[in-house]
Amino acid sequence: MKLLNVDTVEEVKQKIDHYFEHFHIGTEVINITEALDRILSEDVYASIDLPEFNRSTVDGYAVVSKDTFGVNESLPTFLEVVGKVEMGENTTLSIISGQAAYVPTGGMIPIGADGVVMIEYVENLDNKTIAVYHPVAPGDGIIKKGEDIKNNSLLLSKGRKLKSQDIGALAAVGVDKVKVFKKIKTAIISTGDEIVDITCKVKLGQIRDINTYSLSAMVIKMGGEVTKKIVVEDNYETLRDIVKMAIKENDFVVISGGSSVGEKDLTEKVIDSFGDVGVFVNGVSIKPGKPTIIGKVENTAIFGLPGHPVSAIVVFRLFGGYLRDKVFSINEKKIGIYAICDANIHSSEGKETYQMVRIEEKDNEYIAKPIHGKSGAISLMTKAEGYIKIDTNKEGVKKGEKVKVILL
Amino acid sequence: MKLLNVDTVEEVKQKIDHYFEHFHIGTEVINITEALDRILSEDVYASIDLPEFNRSTVDGYAVVSKDTFGVNESLPTFLEVVGKVEMGENTTLSIISGQAAYVPTGGMIPIGADGVVMIEYVENLDNKTIAVYHPVAPGDGIIKKGEDIKNNSLLLSKGRKLKSQDIGALAAVGVDKVKVFKKIKTAIISTGDEIVDITCKVKLGQIRDINTYSLSAMVIKMGGEVTKKIVVEDNYETLRDIVKMAIKENDFVVISGGSSVGEKDLTEKVIDSFGDVGVFVNGVSIKPGKPTIIGKVENTAIFGLPGHPVSAIVVFRLFGGYLRDKVFSINEKKIGIYAICDANIHSSEGKETYQMVRIEEKDNEYIAKPIHGKSGAISLMTKAEGYIKIDTNKEGVKKGEKVKVILL
Repeated sequence: MKLLNVDTVEEVKQKIDHYFEHFHIGTEVINITEALDRILSEDVYASIDLPEFNRSTVDGYAVVSKDTFGVNESLPTFLEVVGKVEMGENTTLSIISGQAAYVPTGGMIPIGADGVVMIEYVENLDNKTIAVYHPVAPGDGIIKKGEDIKNNSLLLSKGRKLKSQDIGALAAVGVDKVKVFKKIKTAIISTGDEIVDITCKVKLGQIRDINTYSLSAMVIKMGGEVTKKIVVEDNYETLRDIVKMAIKENDFVVISGGSSVGEKDLTEKVIDSFGDVGVFVNGVSIKPGKPTIIGKVENTAIFGLPGHPVSAIVVFRLFGGYLRDKVFSINEKKIGIYAICDANIHSSEGKETYQMVRIEEKDNEYIAKPIHGKSGAISLMTKAEGYIKIDTNKEGVKKGEKVKVILL
Repeated sequence: MKLLNVDTVEEVKQKIDHYFEHFHIGTEVINITEALDRILSEDVYASIDLPEFNRSTVDGYAVVSKDTFGVNESLPTFLEVVGKVEMGENTTLSIISGQAAYVPTGGMIPIGADGVVMIEYVENLDNKTIAVYHPVAPGDGIIKKGEDIKNNSLLLSKGRKLKSQDIGALAAVGVDKVKVFKKIKTAIISTGDEIVDITCKVKLGQIRDINTYSLSAMVIKMGGEVTKKIVVEDNYETLRDIVKMAIKENDFVVISGGSSVGEKDLTEKVIDSFGDVGVFVNGVSIKPGKPTIIGKVENTAIFGLPGHPVSAIVVFRLFGGYLRDKVFSINEKKIGIYAICDANIHSSEGKETYQMVRIEEKDNEYIAKPIHGKSGAISLMTKAEGYIKIDTNKEGVKKGEKVKVILL
């Protein structure tokens, strides 16, 4: 039996940093209407002031604010109305003390005005005169040119995963196209003589392919593009041919095999056969997911994942996600849920352990309930709402302990 | 001035329940490879046992477990090897006490065996004999037929938003197609004489359209389909023509207008002009978002949102999301982040207040930092990571108070 030189999760990340320091994913320019959840490949600066002019934030009368100081319900001030600002139009109106001009929400503030009194506090006495019953301070009812976003200021940083609101902000400053990273092209290969695609007839003793389905969905969820998904028998030549083609066309190649020694050796041998770096991680002190392989051939990252569906997902999210975040400079916070663990969880010291949990909410607090099942159980997958990570140097989690749940 | 008969958020939800009790969204059957994030429109049951046969969870030797009771490193038991189970194949092997058969992980357990001892604990003495150095209990190393998922058991419920793992579980039981709700067809209309599309030249005094962009992205994020996005001037006939067409082709029509009284009246008049139910919510005691209109014409829900981008997003997520969850029977938990608020927040009693926040993590705890800005400020949108809801009957939030943050 070949002994595995197992790395810790931290060591794997350092190796990924090292071997993929110059990993290249191309960029493309797309319309902001297609940019939701895409990752900016460069900083975006505003090229205008926002607003572009002093703008009213209310429906009301633009005034010289000091004219209104001290007024109240029983002691209004009377102002001459010199005009009306039309919505969406440039105005040449200007006012001086004693005068006012009507301005709608979003309308341009006339020169000379430094406050807008809301129509609720104004009475129209005649066509030319209003009574103002409420004082305004300088700046009230006005958002100044550039007050929201300054020309040339940084709007969104490289590595930003664009949210709905970001798309709105880009529109606001007139940016209709953005440069983003291309989606990571990914081929997904499931190996095993016993594995058959679900569209085929399954004979007794065979097992339906699960991993190409769950991993494809995971790749899409993580913002990637699945170019190929295929089940391959445990045969060196066949697997090598498929992997060779996959390397040419993809950034990531994900191979999920049985976790038995023979199958792992096959994947390793195939990856190493192309020269270049080849396999640089062969076994990780993680549970589940120990028999994980990571390699590099040309500009392609190859992940050899365990065959168990839950392990495959956990490992791919962990290391595929790490490499993606690194390449894309993703600066999104990893926000989890703090919860109280409602049972003891045993973990092996020396292994980073990932425990699937369900979540319940009670008295303004979340409760994490560990889900157990035999190795490879599928029912685990549909019940789990997230997982908790138990550090290498911990022996487990005690009932009542605070844990951080990463949602699945 | 027309007085608004303002509803509370709770009253709006009750009205939505009432008016959309029979709201209909069609269903479609799709491949599971396209089903990520789609919503099941019917329960899915397993139509096979999983596993379909007693399966080994390890590489090892199938044995009669009581043959191994009491063995240890210095006192092994010796068993006759009667054969080897081939991966992915039906086996007719059977064993009795004193015998063993090799089984790979995932292989079928021979008749008569009730445990599998891992190869690590076995020594091959010759072709026909092994020494076993470790006992196995009945069931060790075996996952029984149906132990993971039972034939005819409920796998996933109606209203489930399908995750990557669910796609894997569906594959596992041989389900390659699922019935899901069609995406909610949504038309997005921005009204206002001052609003121009960002692809057009903007004159001083005009404002770039933001809302059709941010709301389109939000609709997609919420699982909907944007069929049309358009900017319309404040003109009754034009708006009515556009809305009339939109109602015919869509489940949701989202109109975001200025929040001024005139523009709101226009939207209301247009919605009411089609007969049927028309406007049934006209103003909500919520901040931001008071000038919200909700109506129904035929089988279409019409949302008249405030013009301020942040308000529009908050209100659409709240009420559009509520109606979607109701129609789709979505049973997903709304999981938020409990955080400590790091500043006092003032809110008006009698209004449900939504306060945008940033989130920081410190000492195993999240801190919510309120973000303030003038009404309608766009920079708020890119800074906010979530929001907290302050209930109608609360006066605000005190610094140090525990709050629940909903992520944006």
